[in-house]
Amino acid sequence: MQYIAPLAKLIEHFRALPGIGSKTAVRLAYHVLDMDANQAKALASAIIEAKEKIGYCNVCFNLSDRSPCQICAAESRDHTVICVVEQPQDVAAMERMRDFRGVYHVLHGALSPLEGVGPEDLRIKELLGRLSGTKTEEVIVATNPNVEGEATAMYLARLLKPLGVKVTRIAHGLPIGSDLEYADEVTLSKAMENRREME
Amino acid sequence: MQYIAPLAKLIEHFRALPGIGSKTAVRLAYHVLDMDANQAKALASAIIEAKEKIGYCNVCFNLSDRSPCQICAAESRDHTVICVVEQPQDVAAMERMRDFRGVYHVLHGALSPLEGVGPEDLRIKELLGRLSGTKTEEVIVATNPNVEGEATAMYLARLLKPLGVKVTRIAHGLPIGSDLEYADEVTLSKAMENRREME
Repeated sequence: MQYIAPLAKLIEHFRALPGIGSKTAVRLAYHVLDMDANQAKALASAIIEAKEKIGYCNVCFNLSDRSPCQICAAESRDHTVICVVEQPQDVAAMERMRDFRGVYHVLHGALSPLEGVGPEDLRIKELLGRLSGTKTEEVIVATNPNVEGEATAMYLARLLKPLGVKVTRIAHGLPIGSDLEYADEVTLSKAMENRREME
Repeated sequence: MQYIAPLAKLIEHFRALPGIGSKTAVRLAYHVLDMDANQAKALASAIIEAKEKIGYCNVCFNLSDRSPCQICAAESRDHTVICVVEQPQDVAAMERMRDFRGVYHVLHGALSPLEGVGPEDLRIKELLGRLSGTKTEEVIVATNPNVEGEATAMYLARLLKPLGVKVTRIAHGLPIGSDLEYADEVTLSKAMENRREME
């Protein structure tokens, strides 16, 4: 005997989710069977509803339930500073910081020749469109500090600088609260390279 | 800004699942938004369908899409030997072993005075009903080897032995493939206590 069909199917669906292994998938499926019917329905409709109500903002391509999104529509934000990130999750991370008052542009990926991701697969054309439209003082490239993110940052810098826009890159260095002893060499070397004079 | 409402709701639902922390819940929710609409619908309906189609077998109280379940209905199984387990998951574990040809009885929990779980909260009455009905040679108590499981096993032994039925307990000892050096003392002491003469 294996799992009965509807249970096996549910386990398969859970297993297809990122970071969910076989054992967790089984535990989750049994948990769903243990829920009362209303809870299970609420979970199912939260999935459907999120999918139906959330789309992309036509300006910054962040996930949003309206377009333009709350950030792009906010008069309180500085629309002359655009922070370019790879994923919607990165916008959420930046917003948690509560420091940045500019707006965003979500590329939905990073350049990766190995995986066949070229400039035309990212929202780069749309970024150019934004720059030609409104006045932009600065584009902050906040792609991830890895090979793909760096390649994307370099590409954007070369593309945007000729348009007369200031292009900056977020700093790389030792994370706050971390221990120099355990820092990897690349981070440490970046931290040394980007050292600043103290006042 | 926090997450937009339908996303926040989905994150909450995922976070309510067992073993899913905040970060995993967020990752899962973003993954759902990244799925195509059909995939998301399939996930939602797998949840609904599992809930709707799966109930309890009226004989053994295992999860099943029919009653009596496949195992209780199987003529090939030995209906005189009943293996008592705490949860439907335990039946799945036993069946994976492919050794046991008897039938099951799922208690849906274990006695726990601290958490207010008494005999009336478990499917013990139903087990007694089964014993009075058909001929039963042996009841194997395979509750978990922890305080609650042991208490339940003792309770069942005291309850069932006077009815003239053989009550056995699965063995406790060192897991196969484990290392004596790293065994906890209680397991080791059980393993010594339950030692058998070699032939």
